[in-house]
Amino acid sequence: MSKLPNSTTSIFSVMSQLANQHGAINLSQGFPNFPEDERLLKISERIIRENIHQYTPMVGLPSLLEKIAHQTEKQYHRKVNTATEMLITAGATQGVFTAINTFVNANDEVIILDPSYDSYEPSVLVAGGKPVRVSLNLDYTPNFNKIEAAITSKTKMIVVNNPHNPTGRIWTESDFEALETILEKHPEILILGDEVYEYITFTQPHISFNTREKLKHRTIIASSFGKSLHVTGWKVGYLIAPENLMHEMKKVHQFLVFSVNSFSQHAIAEYLDLVDFNIISKMYQSKRDLFQNLLKDSRFELMPCDGTYFQVVNYNSISNENDIDFAKKLITEHGVAAIPISVFYADATDKHMLRFCFAKTDDTLIAAAEKLCLL
Amino acid sequence: MSKLPNSTTSIFSVMSQLANQHGAINLSQGFPNFPEDERLLKISERIIRENIHQYTPMVGLPSLLEKIAHQTEKQYHRKVNTATEMLITAGATQGVFTAINTFVNANDEVIILDPSYDSYEPSVLVAGGKPVRVSLNLDYTPNFNKIEAAITSKTKMIVVNNPHNPTGRIWTESDFEALETILEKHPEILILGDEVYEYITFTQPHISFNTREKLKHRTIIASSFGKSLHVTGWKVGYLIAPENLMHEMKKVHQFLVFSVNSFSQHAIAEYLDLVDFNIISKMYQSKRDLFQNLLKDSRFELMPCDGTYFQVVNYNSISNENDIDFAKKLITEHGVAAIPISVFYADATDKHMLRFCFAKTDDTLIAAAEKLCLL
Ligand SMILES: CSCCC(=O)C(=O)O
Ligand SMILES: CSCCC(=O)C(=O)O
Repeated sequence: MSKLPNSTTSIFSVMSQLANQHGAINLSQGFPNFPEDERLLKISERIIRENIHQYTPMVGLPSLLEKIAHQTEKQYHRKVNTATEMLITAGATQGVFTAINTFVNANDEVIILDPSYDSYEPSVLVAGGKPVRVSLNLDYTPNFNKIEAAITSKTKMIVVNNPHNPTGRIWTESDFEALETILEKHPEILILGDEVYEYITFTQPHISFNTREKLKHRTIIASSFGKSLHVTGWKVGYLIAPENLMHEMKKVHQFLVFSVNSFSQHAIAEYLDLVDFNIISKMYQSKRDLFQNLLKDSRFELMPCDGTYFQVVNYNSISNENDIDFAKKLITEHGVAAIPISVFYADATDKHMLRFCFAKTDDTLIAAAEKLCLL
Repeated sequence: MSKLPNSTTSIFSVMSQLANQHGAINLSQGFPNFPEDERLLKISERIIRENIHQYTPMVGLPSLLEKIAHQTEKQYHRKVNTATEMLITAGATQGVFTAINTFVNANDEVIILDPSYDSYEPSVLVAGGKPVRVSLNLDYTPNFNKIEAAITSKTKMIVVNNPHNPTGRIWTESDFEALETILEKHPEILILGDEVYEYITFTQPHISFNTREKLKHRTIIASSFGKSLHVTGWKVGYLIAPENLMHEMKKVHQFLVFSVNSFSQHAIAEYLDLVDFNIISKMYQSKRDLFQNLLKDSRFELMPCDGTYFQVVNYNSISNENDIDFAKKLITEHGVAAIPISVFYADATDKHMLRFCFAKTDDTLIAAAEKLCLL
């Protein structure tokens, strides 16, 4: 008996592999193809010679916890107690899995907003819970009527991914207020806020759950340095939650992985002193603008992109094929890899949408756009 | 409702912290205090400048998988298919958790041999399963009558940690034969073999589940590079299992952590070409011998130590205190930290045993022994 009978290889692995096989430009899986910051590499080279290769403390390297708390206070004016409210994880994926597997029991329901990142549902299923998948509106804004209607006495948690992967939409003040109004009636429901793209927003500042006075006490925030610091392979993320919730997650974390890669924690802790998080959004905004401009006269229709490093496009005027077939053909015949959006829906809703990752050098984006403009 | 109501901070964290607070010599938590191999550091320094900082494939870095397969064939004459039978994990702890949480369902029973490493029981509890804890004999050899008696129709898995932490005992050929005889009647029971100390054995060669023709098809082997390569902070381990079992574990792994720290995988993959695993046992054997010699005339009674880097001692002739109190006093009054063995028993069996880690410089071992000989 499989706990994940319907899970197959993640779409990110499938598309990256296909891209490699065919020598296509890989705008599918989300990772940058430009070099890391020279300063981060310098720190890394130096600390290799320091005494940093044994277990860090179970909850994370103290200096890294301190730096994250400092940044959280600077950005969101939230004072986080590093001893009781924070945990370093092996990437945000482990953070999400840990949060869900700490609190979700057999038959508990977890509300997930589709299109949804592909790890939420399996994490709920491993916990024995029931994923309740609620579609976003067609413009990828949340549909609060549907969310409210999905709540039952078994609802344990709602997962909110903001900025939103795969669609690049971000929640507005009124979105948060609508959620607050609904959840007022359900004080027992937990929130899991996946904010891994918190430092990549363009049209308005990111509103973090860290700032929501009405929700903070029942929210677990998962974040990561992979995206914002361009080191997706390092697998260093973190959880922030009030003490009562964090206390339980630490227990699971302790026996799930115990501690996180020491070298990467040390390097990031030092590097955080030098990072200007404002610049990250600006850098990615200029890549978004470049990519959008390059595709402006193509037959792809560009969806709004408020944050993340993903641009969703509609290809209705090019083809009627389903998005998985079209994405494969784009690789094999046109030399560009993207992610089909239907795989992120429970019911495989296919509006002929593809997601392109623009965390790439300008040259890569230009080369990809040239190919896409031929369609 | 907590999934782990009785879990507290791991004894390793507790004792290491107490040791730090009191400036005691830390022979509690298992990690080396000598420098890493210069050749590993050189590799590490160089590869920092290479393009290795984005996601590795979900199952692990191909070159690392190849090197492990090569080593497994060399050591155990087992040909492992890297595509279907192997998975890189964020340390063996994540491997153990993943194996258990992939196969153990609500109310399934898992047999665990006490004294047992502290992550097995919580991993079973998070999966909703029932840990069935069976004590080893007083000399820490397995008691097959008790094991057989513990098997029920609900038994899903038996966990065998060999070489054994915390006791340093290793399984003999006849131990394996006894297990094979019992399990012949129970073809559905899975085995989880935790072999993280496979390269640290002294009195006889380690017998790996990799070599057991009668059990291999239902065994998941968890191992790690943290111990054998002296980099416990890197958190790189691996699972080996037949394809049908591995297939399910990959699904869980994919959504639990997705991939493992890229830098450490690259460094280890290169380093494995240079490692002579035979030397590791010899190096630790000389440390064991040194530590045993130093304590020979003390009032501690030395238990046999066949493998691992742990020496168990009995302090009956020194004190009647329970082992937790005695271990604390050893830190605060005598300046040496050890691990009390009772914490690894479901029923807190206390035979006045302590575990000392001898993965330390000779100077450290000498300084610790000087203090211990004063008791
Ligand atoms: C963990 S691989 C997927 C990377 C990613 O977050 C994405 O492409 O959406
Ligand atoms: C994960 S911390 C414990 C290290 C260890 O394996 C031990 O000391 O037994």
